[in-house]
Amino acid sequence: MRMAVIGAGSWGTTMASLVAERSDVALWARRPDLAEAINGGENPDYLPGVALPPMRATSDLAEALDGAEAVLLAVPSHGLRSVLEAAPPIPVDIPILSLTKGIEQGSGMRMTEVIRDVLPEHRTAAIGVLSGPNLAKEIVAGEPAATVVALRDLAVAEVLQRAIMTRRFRVYTNNDVIGAEICGALKNVMAIAAGMITGMQFGLNTSAMFVTRALAEMARLGMRLGSNPLTFGGLAGLGDLVATSMSPLSRNHSVGARLGAGETIEEILATSAQVAEGVKTTPPVLALAEREGVEMPIAEEVGRVLRGESTPLESVERLMTREAQSEGHGIIEP
Amino acid sequence: MRMAVIGAGSWGTTMASLVAERSDVALWARRPDLAEAINGGENPDYLPGVALPPMRATSDLAEALDGAEAVLLAVPSHGLRSVLEAAPPIPVDIPILSLTKGIEQGSGMRMTEVIRDVLPEHRTAAIGVLSGPNLAKEIVAGEPAATVVALRDLAVAEVLQRAIMTRRFRVYTNNDVIGAEICGALKNVMAIAAGMITGMQFGLNTSAMFVTRALAEMARLGMRLGSNPLTFGGLAGLGDLVATSMSPLSRNHSVGARLGAGETIEEILATSAQVAEGVKTTPPVLALAEREGVEMPIAEEVGRVLRGESTPLESVERLMTREAQSEGHGIIEP
Repeated sequence: MRMAVIGAGSWGTTMASLVAERSDVALWARRPDLAEAINGGENPDYLPGVALPPMRATSDLAEALDGAEAVLLAVPSHGLRSVLEAAPPIPVDIPILSLTKGIEQGSGMRMTEVIRDVLPEHRTAAIGVLSGPNLAKEIVAGEPAATVVALRDLAVAEVLQRAIMTRRFRVYTNNDVIGAEICGALKNVMAIAAGMITGMQFGLNTSAMFVTRALAEMARLGMRLGSNPLTFGGLAGLGDLVATSMSPLSRNHSVGARLGAGETIEEILATSAQVAEGVKTTPPVLALAEREGVEMPIAEEVGRVLRGESTPLESVERLMTREAQSEGHGIIEP
Repeated sequence: MRMAVIGAGSWGTTMASLVAERSDVALWARRPDLAEAINGGENPDYLPGVALPPMRATSDLAEALDGAEAVLLAVPSHGLRSVLEAAPPIPVDIPILSLTKGIEQGSGMRMTEVIRDVLPEHRTAAIGVLSGPNLAKEIVAGEPAATVVALRDLAVAEVLQRAIMTRRFRVYTNNDVIGAEICGALKNVMAIAAGMITGMQFGLNTSAMFVTRALAEMARLGMRLGSNPLTFGGLAGLGDLVATSMSPLSRNHSVGARLGAGETIEEILATSAQVAEGVKTTPPVLALAEREGVEMPIAEEVGRVLRGESTPLESVERLMTREAQSEGHGIIEP
């Protein structure tokens, strides 16, 4: 199979090197010097020291896409639209997978919505998502991991599953594109909440409660948008949330941990090179939840703390003293 | 409300002290000296140093149950049957909640099945389960936590919810008794698997994948037995599994970690005071899965490693190279 991977950050490069086991891979890097380095066997900017398998890297989008039978998009959420707009026509029935987690600022669109917006003629059932607990560094090191390819056309999903799966990286199919994408966008918000719990030095009961109830509210929003609540208990939801929420390497988690330990968001932003994805995603997520009339109490408290309107401890107390409810409230019909 | 809590281990005593906020609690301890100590304000055997609120402790079962409007059973799985058999008649319509996680050795029965077996006249819809990520030490220390009361009669569940809930311990209702019980029994098996991943020094991706796929196979078995797969993504399932799988305090997790690091089960048992619950639960769980025709690949590998037929690494490799599947295989209709 001939695959184009668009975006040579750590995740795009990692996926390209996995896919190169079975397919002919073209990897697009924005910068010619990075493409050249990758052709020399290393991505010094994003995966320094990792020996890459043979692949064709190029900074020419048309060359990367030429003859591709599938496209994997691994550019940041703020860059996806402009890259697609700059691309030459892509055959309308080949699969396009978004590897990007996040929501487009301004439009509030999910990544597959951005793809459909730029490529309105493309076959919708062939536009999907690859998502899961996939820290690039661990996967490129060969640690066992798994992911989900979510795509409406199951036959196409299975072709990609066979193309991407290796002995160390399992690929599961799922037909719930919206669910998988909502998971990827919301988990960064929830990772901030999980970080706060760590920062307040609460124990495992408290963390486990927050992860579980965070998933419940993610599922509530997802259902309202047409997705299957069971997707949220899968690799793109629970799996990614557990990995992100427990990882001291996650920027979102560490923002939360610093908030939980008593720093203000201004102090944290002043000493951070990059704004954590969850900090940017929280306002559009809350706007979406409000528009859809879905209660998301944990996300709302993350918003309050980020806006400086509540301390993490006050937020926890507000959450703990909410009205008593059934566990499946808003998910399972009573 | 008048509540009887049967069993004065760390969990029974903790629940009694929570419930004592709103109810008149009688706590049954097998040993008179322990009952006397608790009446003095401390359980020196199971919660040393913790000041208990006023409650009536007794070693007389009839006295503990006299006038009770609800019964919470917190005796170990191997002792539940004999305690119930020794008890005076319990009014057939008062709620009975099992706080015990596990399966009865020999019969393979869930705890509510044991209750129904001993008390066949008791109203089935009033027999339920309380389960969640509830490490007694953290809860008695006042850390925020949550649990599920699963009971077929939702009105009764809501009465118990109001009686048990405090500002630091949220109670959610659920009508899926079987699901909540299966979760509690299986999580100890899965915690051994999670421990092995830690012992092999794999990272968070790998742990998150195992937790997620472990829940999927728990849900497969649960569904076959009539439960709702969404229960497995709730507090009794996911919540408890995350807490147990991440906790170095869990005996099951530490057995797994030692196996993962290369020790044999004989070496581990030779240096352990108690056999971890998951080691005992694995054979009946595998027998149940086989009888029901449900694939439980992770539980099967735990069985193989415990029987000395596979190393943890061989088990991981076998799991990673299984046939490619959909994520909802056996749970979501294709």
